Amino acid sequence: MRILIHAPEAQHWQAALTRELRPTLPNIDIATTQEAGEGPADILVVWKPPVSLLACQDASLKAIFNAGAGVDALLSLPELPEVPIVRLRDAGMGRLMADYALYGILHFYRDMDRYRRQQLDTHWQAQPLADRSTWRVGIVGLGTLGQACAQRIRAQGFEVQGWSRSPKHCEGVDTHHGDAGLTTLLNTSQVIVSLLPDTPETRWLLDEQRLAQLPEGAVVINAGRGTTLDPDALLRLIKQDHLRGALLDVFPDEPLPAQHPLWQDPRVIVTPHVAAPTDVSEGARQFAADILALTRGERIRTVDPATGY
Amino acid sequence: MRILIHAPEAQHWQAALTRELRPTLPNIDIATTQEAGEGPADILVVWKPPVSLLACQDASLKAIFNAGAGVDALLSLPELPEVPIVRLRDAGMGRLMADYALYGILHFYRDMDRYRRQQLDTHWQAQPLADRSTWRVGIVGLGTLGQACAQRIRAQGFEVQGWSRSPKHCEGVDTHHGDAGLTTLLNTSQVIVSLLPDTPETRWLLDEQRLAQLPEGAVVINAGRGTTLDPDALLRLIKQDHLRGALLDVFPDEPLPAQHPLWQDPRVIVTPHVAAPTDVSEGARQFAADILALTRGERIRTVDPATGY
Repeated sequence: MRILIHAPEAQHWQAALTRELRPTLPNIDIATTQEAGEGPADILVVWKPPVSLLACQDASLKAIFNAGAGVDALLSLPELPEVPIVRLRDAGMGRLMADYALYGILHFYRDMDRYRRQQLDTHWQAQPLADRSTWRVGIVGLGTLGQACAQRIRAQGFEVQGWSRSPKHCEGVDTHHGDAGLTTLLNTSQVIVSLLPDTPETRWLLDEQRLAQLPEGAVVINAGRGTTLDPDALLRLIKQDHLRGALLDVFPDEPLPAQHPLWQDPRVIVTPHVAAPTDVSEGARQFAADILALTRGERIRTVDPATGY
Repeated sequence: MRILIHAPEAQHWQAALTRELRPTLPNIDIATTQEAGEGPADILVVWKPPVSLLACQDASLKAIFNAGAGVDALLSLPELPEVPIVRLRDAGMGRLMADYALYGILHFYRDMDRYRRQQLDTHWQAQPLADRSTWRVGIVGLGTLGQACAQRIRAQGFEVQGWSRSPKHCEGVDTHHGDAGLTTLLNTSQVIVSLLPDTPETRWLLDEQRLAQLPEGAVVINAGRGTTLDPDALLRLIKQDHLRGALLDVFPDEPLPAQHPLWQDPRVIVTPHVAAPTDVSEGARQFAADILALTRGERIRTVDPATGY
C-alpha cells in the first residue's frame, strides 16, 4: 500500500503518518511527491494538489485525504478522481478556532477597541460594562469547528445561539436553521462568529442585506471562508456606524490586496488566515485511524460532494 | 440597626441591601450619606470614605464593609475605628478579572500584537504558533481573584502556576511561595498575571530586578494594584526588548498622568482600572449574608490589618 503526500509540511506529515501506521502496517510505503515525484498511489494526502498529480492516478486509488478542513479548493479541481474524500475534522483546530473567536468576543465585550482609541488620545475613562446576559453570541455554521466554538464560548458565561442550513442539535445552544432562522439569529446577536464553509449555498450568504439585519453596534467575526461574507458591504455598514467593528481572518482574495480599505480602518482587525492552523501530529492521528479503518473494510466519514462538507 | 452607605452607586447599594435584608430584618434602617448626611451607624458600607465620616462614629459601630476588594485606601485613613473590616471577596469580580487576564493572554499567545503591527504596514504574514504547553502562565497573588483566574485560564488548556507569600493549595496549579518561589515562577513563566493587593509587603515587589527574572519575550499583565509593580522598570525592559509587551489596568498614580510614556508605547495596552468592576447586586448579596451572620452573633471573615487582606 502506498500513501503519497503533497501538502505544506509534507515531511512532517510523512513522519507523523509513519509513526501512527507502521506498527500496524509494517510494509506500508509513505512518500512525499518532493522525494518520490508524482505517480499513482492507494491514498493521496493533499492540500491544493497540482492537476497533474490527480490526472496520473489509476484504479488503485482508494481515497483522497484533504490536509485541511475546507475542501472547496479540492472539489473545484478538474480531473478529480471519483473516490471518497476525507477531510480534517478537528485536529486541534477546534481549540484554536475557539481561542480566536473568544479573543474577538472579549476584545469588543470588554471595550478594548474603545480603550485603544482612548489610549491614542491619552484619555482615562471607564466605559460602562455591558450586561453579559444581553451580549448574545451567534455562531453561523455549526460544523465541528462551530460546535467547538459554541461550547467554549458558552463555558465563559455568554449566551450562545447557532445557525446551520439544516436543523442541528447543539447542547445548551439555541439553534436556528434556514432563511428565516438566519434572520432571527442576526436580529438577536450582539456578535456573530461566521465559520461557514465555502459551498455553492454559502457563497456571499452574508451580504449587505443580511449584515444590516444585525442590531446597531453589533460586531462581526469571520474565520470561516472569505467568499461567504461581502467585505465591502461590511465596511460600508461600519463606516455608517451601523456596525461597531470586525475581526476578520479570511477574505475573498488572499492575501488581502494591499490597496483594500479593510487594512486601513481602525475598527477592523485583519489577521492573515491564522485562526485555526492545522496541527499535523493531531491530523495524522485522525487520518491514520481512518486509513486503518479502510484497510479493515470499515466505512469512514467522507465528504458529500453535493454539500461540500 | 442602622447601615450608612458612602460609596459610588450608593443608591444602587441601598436598594440592593434593602432587598436582601428587609425580609429578615424588617426594622433595619439603610441610608446613604447623600440623603441622611454623616453620623453614627451600626454598620458602614464605604469606598474611600471621608475622614469626617469615620471620626463621628461611636461605640455602636460594629463593622466597616469595604465596597471593593482592595482595602489599602481604607487602612491608610486616620481616625479608622478599631472594628472588624469586611471586604468584597468576589461579587462577580472573579469572572470579570479572568476575562481580562484571558484577553491579555490570548492577545499575546495568538500574536495579535504582531498582527496589529503588520496591519499598520499592510503586511500579510502568518506567525508560527507557539506550542501551548511551552506558554506557561504565572499568577502572582492567589487570593479569591487569583484563584478564579487560575482556574479559568487552566480550563482554556494553558499550564498555570501560581505564587503567594505563604503556601497555598490551588487545584491543578503548581504553587510557589516566598522569595525563592517567586524567582522560580518568574524564571519559568511566559506571561505573568499580577493580582497582588497593596500591602507593606507587596509594595514595589515587582521591581526591575524581579521583572528581569522573566525569560526574554515574556509578557506582563497587571490588574492588582499599581504600587506593586514599577512601571518605569517595566517600560525599560520592554524598550530593551527583554520583555515583549504588557497589559496594564493599574498604576501607582491613577489616572495615569498624561505625560507618562506608558501611554505612548505601542507594546503596552493601558486600560483605566476596569479589569474587575464591582457588581453591586452580587456585592450586596455577600454583605447581606455577612450582616445577617453578625446579627446572629456568628463569626465572619474579616480583614487582617497586619497583612491587608
